[in-house]
This record gives sequence, C-alpha cells and structure tokens, in this order.
Amino acid sequence: MPHDGARTGLQIRSLVKANGDLEVSLVRVPVPVPADNEVLVRVEAAPINPSDLGLLFAGADLQAAGRRGTAAEPLVAARVPDAALKSMTARVDVSMPVGNEGAGVVVETGSAASAQALLGKTVAALGGAMYSQYRCVPAELCLELPPGASPAAGASAFVNPLTALGMVETLRNEGHTALVHTAAASNLGQMLNRICIKEGIALVNVVRSRQQEDLLRSIGAEHVCDSSSPLFLKDLTTALTTTGATLCFDAIGGGKLAGQILSCMEAALNGTATSYSRYGSPIHKQVYIYGGLGMGPIELTRNIGMAWGVGGWLVTPFLQKLGAAATQRLKQRVAAELKTTFASAYAGELSLAEALDLKNIAVYSKAATGQKYLINPNKDLPALP
Amino acid sequence: MPHDGARTGLQIRSLVKANGDLEVSLVRVPVPVPADNEVLVRVEAAPINPSDLGLLFAGADLQAAGRRGTAAEPLVAARVPDAALKSMTARVDVSMPVGNEGAGVVVETGSAASAQALLGKTVAALGGAMYSQYRCVPAELCLELPPGASPAAGASAFVNPLTALGMVETLRNEGHTALVHTAAASNLGQMLNRICIKEGIALVNVVRSRQQEDLLRSIGAEHVCDSSSPLFLKDLTTALTTTGATLCFDAIGGGKLAGQILSCMEAALNGTATSYSRYGSPIHKQVYIYGGLGMGPIELTRNIGMAWGVGGWLVTPFLQKLGAAATQRLKQRVAAELKTTFASAYAGELSLAEALDLKNIAVYSKAATGQKYLINPNKDLPALP
Repeated sequence: MPHDGARTGLQIRSLVKANGDLEVSLVRVPVPVPADNEVLVRVEAAPINPSDLGLLFAGADLQAAGRRGTAAEPLVAARVPDAALKSMTARVDVSMPVGNEGAGVVVETGSAASAQALLGKTVAALGGAMYSQYRCVPAELCLELPPGASPAAGASAFVNPLTALGMVETLRNEGHTALVHTAAASNLGQMLNRICIKEGIALVNVVRSRQQEDLLRSIGAEHVCDSSSPLFLKDLTTALTTTGATLCFDAIGGGKLAGQILSCMEAALNGTATSYSRYGSPIHKQVYIYGGLGMGPIELTRNIGMAWGVGGWLVTPFLQKLGAAATQRLKQRVAAELKTTFASAYAGELSLAEALDLKNIAVYSKAATGQKYLINPNKDLPALP
Repeated sequence: MPHDGARTGLQIRSLVKANGDLEVSLVRVPVPVPADNEVLVRVEAAPINPSDLGLLFAGADLQAAGRRGTAAEPLVAARVPDAALKSMTARVDVSMPVGNEGAGVVVETGSAASAQALLGKTVAALGGAMYSQYRCVPAELCLELPPGASPAAGASAFVNPLTALGMVETLRNEGHTALVHTAAASNLGQMLNRICIKEGIALVNVVRSRQQEDLLRSIGAEHVCDSSSPLFLKDLTTALTTTGATLCFDAIGGGKLAGQILSCMEAALNGTATSYSRYGSPIHKQVYIYGGLGMGPIELTRNIGMAWGVGGWLVTPFLQKLGAAATQRLKQRVAAELKTTFASAYAGELSLAEALDLKNIAVYSKAATGQKYLINPNKDLPALP
C-alpha cells in the first residue's frame, strides 16, 4: 500500500515464531495513502470478537504471559502449545495485523467520487487490521452509518449481525422451522432473539446462569434453558418438543453440550413418534459449531439415532455460498436496523496500549458474556498532522 | 397377510417389554399365501448384519443373557439398559420379526405372470422378516439370481452392495475425489475396494490388525493403515496427503477414530497449504458414521479447523434421495457382478435354533471382521407338505 513515509500510526501485530514464541506488540507503521477508490479511516471503535482472539493470541497460554517493551509501545510474550503450533505453519514468522471489523471517521479519500462522498462521514468496515490507528479501505466496502451514529454504534455492524442473519438464512435453506442457540445471552444472541421475535421463528436460548436467563427474558425471549440448572435436560427437551427445533448454532463446541442438544432433540422427536425405527427418528437433526468458547474435545453420545449432523459453520464461507446479491440485502438490513435489532453493548473501551495490558487481557480473552470490549485505536493519541 | 391356517413355519421374533425385559424367541407362525403379485420364498440364507443386531437384541446386555424354552423353540432373555429403553417407546410390547435381507427358492406364486415366472427360481430380497422359514414378497422386489447361484451367494445382495455403491455415489455427489473407510477388511470393505480399484478412486483403508492389512493388500488395496500400529497417525496423514481424501465412511463411531481421521485430514491439508487461515483449511472434510461397532461417545478434538462435518449415514434414506431410477441402476450392477465385485464370505451357517444359542450369540453379536454368519431358516427342518 502506498504511503508518504512521513506520517505513522500505531497498529497491533501478532507474531508466532517457529519455536512457539508468541509476541503481540504495538508497532509504528506508515499511514497509507488512499488509492482512487479508497478512503482513509481514523478507526475509533473495533470490537474484540472471539474470532479476533484466535488470530491475536494463537491459542497461547495467557496465564503465563509476560509483558516487555515500553508503556507506549508494549509487547506481550507467551507460548503457543506444540499441538496448536502444528496448524500454524503458514503464519509462522509472519507479523500479522488483527481486528476483523470496526468503525471510524473518513479523514482522507482518493479521487473517485464514491470515495470523496464519504469524507468526514462515520463508516464501518470489515477490513481486517482494524486494530490500527489508520486503515485504508475501498469506498464500496464501507457501510455509512446514519447521521449522528458514533463509531462505537457501528463498530460491530458486520460479524455479529451477518452471523445472526446467516443463522436464520441457514434455517430456511435447510428446511428447519425453529432453532437452538447456545451462549445465547451474548450480543449476537440478543440480536438473534430480536430477529426471531420479529420474524415469528421459535428460538430456544441455552444460557449458563439464572442472570443470563433473566436478561434474555427481559428482551422478550420465550424459551430459555439454563444449563446450570439440575432440570436443564428436562427443560431443554420440553422446549424442543414445544418448538420442534431441529437446528442448533453452538458457540462453544468443546464438551458435552452439543451432544446433549442432539440427544434431547432425538428424545423430543421420539416422544412424539408413532412408529418404531431401529435407527431412531428419521428427522435430520443438525448442530453447527460456529465458535470456540470451549476448545476441549467435543463429545457426542450415541443416543441420537442416525439422522444427525455436527459441523463447523462460519459466516464468511456461508455468505460466499449465499451470493453477492443476497449478502447485499442482508447488509442493507443491518444498516437500517443498526440502532435497534443490531445494537451491541460493551463492558468498556480500551486504547491499543490498554489492549496489551495483562490485566485487561485476562478479562477480555475469556470472551465471557457481558465482557465484550471495544478497542479505540485513537484513544489518548494525537490526531494526524 | 392371508394364509390357509393349516401350514406353519418358524420365525425369529424380538420383543422388548415395558420393564426392559428382552425376549428373542422362535415362534411358529402361519405360512402366508402369496397375493397375485407375490411369491412365497423358502428362505435358505439370510446374513446377520450389524443393522440386524440392533433390532434383534435392542442394545441388551448379552453377557447376562439366559436361555429358556425348548431345544426346538428356544427363548433368549436379557435386559435392555434403561438409557437404551427410552428411545424404544414405539417398539415396546410389539413382537418384531427380524432379518433385513436374504435369499431362497420360490416355492409358490400368485397368479400374476411376473410372479409365476419366478417359480422354482432362486431369488434375493430385501424384505425384512427374513429370519423366517417362509416369506411372501412382491415379485418386483425380488432379484433373480444367475442360474446355478446358491441362496448363500445371493444372501447379501442388497445391504452391503448398495451401501458400498452408495458411498461412491456420495463421494461424487459431494465433490470429493478420494475416501477413507474404517473397519475396512469387512465384506463391505472388500466390496468397496473392488469398486474403487475398478473405477480408479483412491481409497484409504483403516484396519485394526496386521492380519486385516494383509487380507486387503492381497486383494489389491494400495493404502492400508493399521490403527493398532504406533505409526498409525503418521501413516494415515501420509496416505491422506497422497490421496487427497476428504471424505470418510466410518463403521465404528464411538471413540476417537472419527476425530483422528478429521484431524489427520486437516494436517494433510495444512501441510500443503500456501497461506495461513485462522480458521484452518477452507476445504470441507466430512466423516459419515454408518455403523455402530463402537457405541461409546464419539470424541472430536478441535484441531480440525472449521470446515468439517460429522453425521449419520444410512443407505435407505440415501437411496430415497437418489431416486428410483438411479437405485435401479445400482441394483442391476449388483446382479451383474454378484459373484465378483459383490461376493461375500461367511464364517458359517446357523439354523434358526442355533442362532438363539448363547455361545453362537456371543460370537456373532460382536460383528467382528471375519465372523459374519448366515442364518439358514430351513436348515435341519422338513419341507412344507
């Protein structure tokens, strides 16, 4: 990317070395100069999504992390376990920028009219490398926020909204009529509730505490099952019988939950079956694992018949299959409902340097419900000359 | 089904009671009289497939089984575990005949020309209830065996051949180019090898002993990985790299094997990757579990990226999706290659009474490779008057 060499900005980088050392650091990089169709965004809000944590910390042992460097340009050092290192051959010794999405103000543009039209506007972008003070992106990939919307309001305009909408599209494409969602009190889970309530789709929310249950009920969720309750499996089976849900999106993956959901679906289907099949219910039950909140082994018991599937699901390949026109339709819906259906809440805002503070890392790296943070890459830093 | 009431034959029945008692017994039932389009088959060979064992023994604890009744009409009693009982509501207190497929001689027919044409012929049928001395089936569902072929030669003309062909159809339909098969030294596995060799499809055979490896190599298998070898995972990854297999049909299910195959596929794909993806290889990896040789939990480790799926697979719903015309094409191929591609081998032949002998049950209920048995329902019994 061209730049004039004189102006620089800070950026978070993640580097995995061949020996398994991880270094997450703040580096000073040239401010890029926008090409004709590009705009230069002063990034002011970028969420720390679970999907960013994988790239940022590479599965390293953060409990044993150390911090070096200066206060202004710190470096966090940790070790990547050997097992995780094997799958990272292609990123070894490549210093990688981080941050899938974010929002900010357009401070310079290229010569194209579409770019110039955005000057001074607040825009969101799924650009990658958004944990940077300044980021060049093509004008056509920017989502212009409604007048008066802050960068924070548009920071999460892509990943969570398109994931939630993609789940509902998948439900329709694969012929299900109701669905289950785990870690359901998250920002994403709340969006999914608002979409499903609006569209009359029954949604079974699986949460991990009474407090999360209360939160979801307060926004109108009808079916909420608390996995910390001794009645969880019974409650879940009842909700599955009532709703007929045969699809689940699971943010966790590791452990028994995905298998429990399949076996409760099977029990719900068999509870209403009128004839015996030696292979269990012939109705297909599907769990898509779209996150890695649990990175231990996934355990599936075999009381789920033979008509079932478990698999990985990611929004980007899903949208590629869906096609550009349908994706554009979803994005327009997000823009129109940014402050309602797709509103997000954050626990706080971190500067780039604060994002590399070990105490902060210990909090946000858990990706716990209610503990979603924004990075503001220009917090506490002077504007460009 | 109509019958004249005077003539009877023996049949194996499986009964699960509401209290969890299982009774597998020989019962005397009227010999049915064929309708116009039907033929009456004197069944002389019916295989004990893993898919029959589930219906026959209902997951009961066979180690604690007891035997009652007479030598000619025995009864085997065992207990179905409570966990298994829950999924069997629809079969409780229903005395169920057993035996998916088999072959025998047509001894009587209905009035239709298509039925009369089969009189005296040896035919195979996927009729259900084939562990019976006499079975009525529609003429159009019979597969007439080539002249001189014994019932034993045609006993397994449906389940294994159509399953093996269905696997290759699935490979093509889902865009894979090579595949993995577990429990690969089975009759089915040998058929799959012959099909793949004939069609130039690379097949990675996973077996559980050196002896099984030798057997497969003797019929021309090129890629054989022995899961009892300390080098198993390394050998498997090498074979996956060589073949590019991204599809697996797994007869086992329970345990770590399905997950190991996925993670070796992922390692093989990453080993040849040229750029890093935080979500692992974007190439979809699929394991279909089509059997229950291992009924413990399925364990999947999370070093498999996000582009993967695991699911149940059964030949009957697969053929229903494939459609009648394509299924007919597969059946014609089976008939044409019954003595070559689709030949089966058996460890022995049991009468109906011998099939309910506890010592025999202890052997065949394990569904071990090389221990496949045929039931001859007319062995040691007089012909119809």
